[in-house]
Amino acid sequence: VVPDPAIFFLSDYGNADEFVGVVHAVLHRMAPSIPAIDLSHQVDPFDVSGGAAMLARAVPFLGHGVVLAVVDPGVGSGRRPIAVRTGGDGPYWLVGPDNGLLIEAAHVLGGPATAFVLDRQRLTPQWSPSGSGPTFDGRDIFAPAVAHLVTGGEPAAIGTEIPTETLVRLDADSPSSRPVPGPEAGTAMAPVTWIDRYGNVQLDLLPSVLDEMGVGANDRVRVTLGSGPDHVLFRRVRAFSDLEAGEFGIVVDANGRVALVLDQASAASRLVGTDVGVTVSLVPVDESTHER
Amino acid sequence: VVPDPAIFFLSDYGNADEFVGVVHAVLHRMAPSIPAIDLSHQVDPFDVSGGAAMLARAVPFLGHGVVLAVVDPGVGSGRRPIAVRTGGDGPYWLVGPDNGLLIEAAHVLGGPATAFVLDRQRLTPQWSPSGSGPTFDGRDIFAPAVAHLVTGGEPAAIGTEIPTETLVRLDADSPSSRPVPGPEAGTAMAPVTWIDRYGNVQLDLLPSVLDEMGVGANDRVRVTLGSGPDHVLFRRVRAFSDLEAGEFGIVVDANGRVALVLDQASAASRLVGTDVGVTVSLVPVDESTHER
Amino acid sequence: VVPDPAIFFLSDYGNADEFVGVVHAVLHRMAPSIPAIDLSHQVDPFDVSGGAAMLARAVPFLGHGVVLAVVDPGVGSGRRPIAVRTGGDGPYWLVGPDNGLLIEAAHVLGGPATAFVLDRQRLTPQWSPSGSGPTFDGRDIFAPAVAHLVTGGEPAAIGTEIPTETLVRLDADSPSSRPVPGPEAGTAMAPVTWIDRYGNVQLDLLPSVLDEMGVGANDRVRVTLGSGPDHVLFRRVRAFSDLEAGEFGIVVDANGRVALVLDQASAASRLVGTDVGVTVSLVPVDESTHER
Repeated sequence: VVPDPAIFFLSDYGNADEFVGVVHAVLHRMAPSIPAIDLSHQVDPFDVSGGAAMLARAVPFLGHGVVLAVVDPGVGSGRRPIAVRTGGDGPYWLVGPDNGLLIEAAHVLGGPATAFVLDRQRLTPQWSPSGSGPTFDGRDIFAPAVAHLVTGGEPAAIGTEIPTETLVRLDADSPSSRPVPGPEAGTAMAPVTWIDRYGNVQLDLLPSVLDEMGVGANDRVRVTLGSGPDHVLFRRVRAFSDLEAGEFGIVVDANGRVALVLDQASAASRLVGTDVGVTVSLVPVDESTHER
Repeated sequence: VVPDPAIFFLSDYGNADEFVGVVHAVLHRMAPSIPAIDLSHQVDPFDVSGGAAMLARAVPFLGHGVVLAVVDPGVGSGRRPIAVRTGGDGPYWLVGPDNGLLIEAAHVLGGPATAFVLDRQRLTPQWSPSGSGPTFDGRDIFAPAVAHLVTGGEPAAIGTEIPTETLVRLDADSPSSRPVPGPEAGTAMAPVTWIDRYGNVQLDLLPSVLDEMGVGANDRVRVTLGSGPDHVLFRRVRAFSDLEAGEFGIVVDANGRVALVLDQASAASRLVGTDVGVTVSLVPVDESTHER
Repeated sequence: VVPDPAIFFLSDYGNADEFVGVVHAVLHRMAPSIPAIDLSHQVDPFDVSGGAAMLARAVPFLGHGVVLAVVDPGVGSGRRPIAVRTGGDGPYWLVGPDNGLLIEAAHVLGGPATAFVLDRQRLTPQWSPSGSGPTFDGRDIFAPAVAHLVTGGEPAAIGTEIPTETLVRLDADSPSSRPVPGPEAGTAMAPVTWIDRYGNVQLDLLPSVLDEMGVGANDRVRVTLGSGPDHVLFRRVRAFSDLEAGEFGIVVDANGRVALVLDQASAASRLVGTDVGVTVSLVPVDESTHER
């Protein structure tokens, strides 16, 4: 049996204005039986790479359905509105601007299979104000496209296929573009990808890299942020509660990445200079010496 | 076929307390099959005119259903709880306090056809605490009324008809009360009606006024805020992306109104003294001179 | 007829990250036909007693369904994941960590009837990353348990019964633990339990205590915060609108508790030192004297 689909909605619209509610209303008008689930609308305004990272973190857990993602500094420009088809058990269409927002999530879901550029004229509902400029594509193009696709409509009815190789990717030096870190003279380098509400600092680093460096449970690591000379000692633990009060820890987080944490406190606010994109270096401590 | 109705919920309740969730729970108890869509709950506390403007902007896009709107500084006073019937394809009932919050949206929807004052005794559910004061009418009166009306209940069963002429309107000098601006010695005057999350500054001004003043694409306009002597030059463009970095622009926004903008930055934070209600004057620049 | 159940979701996850959306997606995957209603996700991080107080305030109004509550500083520690069965017409299961978050609400609902400790292995879905630590139990344990219970699953299939006497309660000196205030030499003492968005200050005090002290409508009360020597005069009124501008008032709030308020303004911001947990003393004013 095919599971019930849902719509998964992420944006930088915020919750103070009516943008999110109006898009939900359009989705309900055009696909009334499909639930629409908000991921978050508090991506920083115009922060495409932050939105892309959030979407990539979320998609493995969402299940069957269609993603509507709008962080769109180029709205009204030549940037293409797109729908990207993916395989696997998760969301099978990703809809939004062709600015790199969708592509990382598409790769998490097995890669883009096909892609379509959406046709503004065929999508804009009759109730959209004809005189207004193209400033609210979430309402006028993307939500109608999502409603069409989630109810089984053909993509060719609302757009034109384009080669997936032409999809815009985020710059290589953008924080979320996942440079592969590796042990180099015993050091792992990785950028900060996310600081969450609790102040946990996620790195673009898989725990297997720590394993290869010989950093196991309870082993300590010297962590340096950016180019600063100072380092802080962290202990690798299984859970927050394994830490003493005020002790810095390294855990594997809920996305399977390495994160720098404190127990019941914000690691980010204690680590001066921490920010998304800053590079962190980690060096195992030789426990046979008495370094502190 | 009649489309599936929804409930559209706007308030100044915020999202930090449980108010919004409790009202949703009451709606679900009393109208379990009807989806309830949040427009926004971050209207400034007690800001009736801000809520009224938001509701008026949103209603053209909502479709079939019932509006629940609560910005209610007079809760517990003599102000009447009301339901207003409107025509057309959009929401057909607006429910909330009779303090001007609903009336502008009703006019956008074709005007109030009939109105009822709601009967507290007949509406308050048995689970509401009998000893408490009338401080949470959203939970105790408005949500039950919305559930009754959206499921096809007769308005006469929960209230008494009143003449629509008696409905409270916002003061004439309130910012959202839409004074009609017009070209006067070549100048358009219009109040700021909204500053959105991105810092775009919406004016209560239709683009046709600019057209009549001879301001076309790429033409420049001198904009003065309030009574200040200084002005700023703006260029009329079709989309944000037509602007250079840091260049002020005039666009037609997603509600069909004139807005003062920057590309990927906040115009409001760059224009000293901008606030909702401040009057803006716009004077076309004679492009045959070399004014800058 | 049994009413349609819903899921009621409260947490300290905030709305800036994707946590809430991911949990909703898991609930939809596992219980697609059950609506999930957000109470609030802006409980202060790790504030178990604040979350417990919010949940206890909300449950009388929610109706049939299952509560999912996550404020969980001890995630990954030995604290037990639990499901608590309650009687009555409201929510009949409360699911979350065994840290006191659920117990006050359970008592509001008639007390815990049975309780189960949840089995992590049987609950964690196959899509959860096997390598990650136990840092997101809302997604990996609690949401699956809620989906199981709200769709009629047997609790014994996902956990083991435990005596309700073993459930963790909040400390006696925690602000939400409801010490019974009473008239003592004509004085009522009560802690502040909540400051809401509007700045209303709720006390853990029933209006019957004021009645017993002889404080009726329009009577005045001297209110002292904490151990300070200063007091402020309040007038007992029925509704905010009975107050003059700037006059402090005492009302019975929407939860049937005594609250300190101003009309259309924040009482909390005007009362220096007000905070959750601070003790407030109230002394009736002898109206035969001319105290001011």
